Amino acid sequence: MQLSHRITHLTGGGSDGWEVFYRARQMKADGIPVTELTIGEHDIGTDPSILAAMNAAAVGGHTGYAMVPGIDTLRDTVAARVQAQSGVPTTRHNVLITPGGQSALFAAHNATCNAGDTALFIDPYYATYPGTIRGVGAVPVAVQAHADNAFQPRAADIAGVASKGAASLLVNSPNNPTGVVYSRETLEGIAEVCKTYDLWLISDEVYDTQVWEGEHISPRALPDMAERTLVVGSMSKSHAMTGSRCGWIVGPEEVIEHLINLATHTTYGVPGFIQDAADFALNAGDELEKEVAAPFERRRALARDLLANQNTVGLVPAQGAMYLMLDMRATGLSGEEFANMLLDTHKIAVMPGESFGQAAHGHIRVAMTIPDDQFLAALKTLCDMAAEISNKRAAE
Amino acid sequence: MQLSHRITHLTGGGSDGWEVFYRARQMKADGIPVTELTIGEHDIGTDPSILAAMNAAAVGGHTGYAMVPGIDTLRDTVAARVQAQSGVPTTRHNVLITPGGQSALFAAHNATCNAGDTALFIDPYYATYPGTIRGVGAVPVAVQAHADNAFQPRAADIAGVASKGAASLLVNSPNNPTGVVYSRETLEGIAEVCKTYDLWLISDEVYDTQVWEGEHISPRALPDMAERTLVVGSMSKSHAMTGSRCGWIVGPEEVIEHLINLATHTTYGVPGFIQDAADFALNAGDELEKEVAAPFERRRALARDLLANQNTVGLVPAQGAMYLMLDMRATGLSGEEFANMLLDTHKIAVMPGESFGQAAHGHIRVAMTIPDDQFLAALKTLCDMAAEISNKRAAE
Repeated sequence: MQLSHRITHLTGGGSDGWEVFYRARQMKADGIPVTELTIGEHDIGTDPSILAAMNAAAVGGHTGYAMVPGIDTLRDTVAARVQAQSGVPTTRHNVLITPGGQSALFAAHNATCNAGDTALFIDPYYATYPGTIRGVGAVPVAVQAHADNAFQPRAADIAGVASKGAASLLVNSPNNPTGVVYSRETLEGIAEVCKTYDLWLISDEVYDTQVWEGEHISPRALPDMAERTLVVGSMSKSHAMTGSRCGWIVGPEEVIEHLINLATHTTYGVPGFIQDAADFALNAGDELEKEVAAPFERRRALARDLLANQNTVGLVPAQGAMYLMLDMRATGLSGEEFANMLLDTHKIAVMPGESFGQAAHGHIRVAMTIPDDQFLAALKTLCDMAAEISNKRAAE
Repeated sequence: MQLSHRITHLTGGGSDGWEVFYRARQMKADGIPVTELTIGEHDIGTDPSILAAMNAAAVGGHTGYAMVPGIDTLRDTVAARVQAQSGVPTTRHNVLITPGGQSALFAAHNATCNAGDTALFIDPYYATYPGTIRGVGAVPVAVQAHADNAFQPRAADIAGVASKGAASLLVNSPNNPTGVVYSRETLEGIAEVCKTYDLWLISDEVYDTQVWEGEHISPRALPDMAERTLVVGSMSKSHAMTGSRCGWIVGPEEVIEHLINLATHTTYGVPGFIQDAADFALNAGDELEKEVAAPFERRRALARDLLANQNTVGLVPAQGAMYLMLDMRATGLSGEEFANMLLDTHKIAVMPGESFGQAAHGHIRVAMTIPDDQFLAALKTLCDMAAEISNKRAAE
């Protein structure tokens, strides 16, 4: 009677760079005021109009089992949205509604990786990626995107690993944690590697409504990629519906059919009233989405102005998503050291770059998820502390 | 670029006895009125007071990420409930909230079975059991509970299979599809087998509030079983919240810790407003539960009276859950043949026993999920048709 190797090794063990985060949470629990710039949660709740739609659906009787693949209306809406974004013909038969983007990431890897298969992902990465891959018994292998290439992954680096054999590649643009939006060149390179080495491409596009510079390109839109690409989407970031757990996978019909089977055996669908709310939200027009995205775009502009007036802290191109990735290497400290010092000295919590793998060492991630004035004040304190450390270092 | 063996073989292939069900659904879609006595869905929706609690939580701001293990209040409530049922000390650290019972079944097998391990379950079985086991790469092996033992599984039969090596055993009492409630003797026998062959016991207890005869005993309450038992529970059946997808796993703290890791990588928790609604419902007192269970108890009594006045159709002891298992062998037909004939002749849809494995061949399952008068009328038609077939057969 032992637990499965799969589950006991899920987190990979060892330090994961999240100590700062847990320490900050503990300080808050102990009543110490902490300015939290850590996780990707909006500082607003779900819009009342969406909640009203949800309540109307529930009170109206949509409380029984919903169809496992998702309700037709929402599948159609998602299909139309994805088709409009990508230009690729898309119907409800290309869409599975899932209880959130994380569930979609898990299902996509369950569908594409046998036990023991190698599944690739790009470092820096969202914290759950390696564990999601281990959760289906596959072996996570990271490919680094380098700071000197503005965290755009290089096709040659991916090919170098893929050539040894892999089942899938997971990418994420707009990217968490870096805030980078992958360029057409980057994505075309990725597509070529996938075709050359016969990889499934799992494309996490949950930040697709948060693009401040450049354009969001779905790799599913690139030549001959629709047949090997599974797009993961979600209501969480675009509509501040993180707690509603509603997302989707878009892919080839045959894959969706198998994924529906999997959903029958893993989740048995998504609450119908939540799907009705999501359908309402997606049909409420661009304004709602823009309203949700606006604070991040505004805070990004404020941050750029502030950072332009100093020389210590570098800003990784902040092209999308709700985060800034800051280069702290001029301080001589690791991201973890700087974050710990910032928390101890100023009660400001940020995520060390090391929380997201090896590639973002010497960096920190700042979530733009608190009111503008507090955000700016925290950023100023952060820059001042960095300058002080850097100056002291220069004087030594 | 192939799909995983795990997902392409999920359903096991071949006829699964669900053709009658799909045919009935198609007839309905084509506008033909069909009396459906097929799946386990209440003929009432979720109680308005529960929906009001959900809406109050959402409007009150509980729309962000909820804690992945579940909110403390609901974990505490479930712990207290399970402790009251079983007498085993239980705290929130023994509880993981899941998006529904199916998700809990999947997680329990993910935690206890390595790829290639044998996972046992009892036939007749709820339709998703074998696929759930295949979904974690394990091998489902059925142990038959026999009609001649009133579908109570025999310890010796389980031991015969377990002795060849297995990681887990999945049981379900009150049982779907048979309506049988496992006796203390049955459960003690199961417990002994689990201890002898070092098996995890996964105990699906989602019908625990629907017991009409005898008592519900959780195997977790038996000596030395708490350490190797994972109890699966759900709001679906007890509170007519099938569409809300809210359930739980109760087990040893160490296992729950690993299951929380798994949840982080598979579901990322359950909507907070749904958990608040569930917590409200569980604290609303026994009356709400009794109200939800009452129609099934009432219809069961009506069915027993009706069946007492004929000799063709046998009633498997209807001790719990929302189903009747009827023995149709006196007709000389298989369950599938009888169900098809009943659908064609009288537009009444029931589930062939063969939909649930081999052990219930020659039986049909009748869900007690339509209004009393329609239910009785359908049952009478069914009995009349069975008598006619049986008489004709006797005359031949």
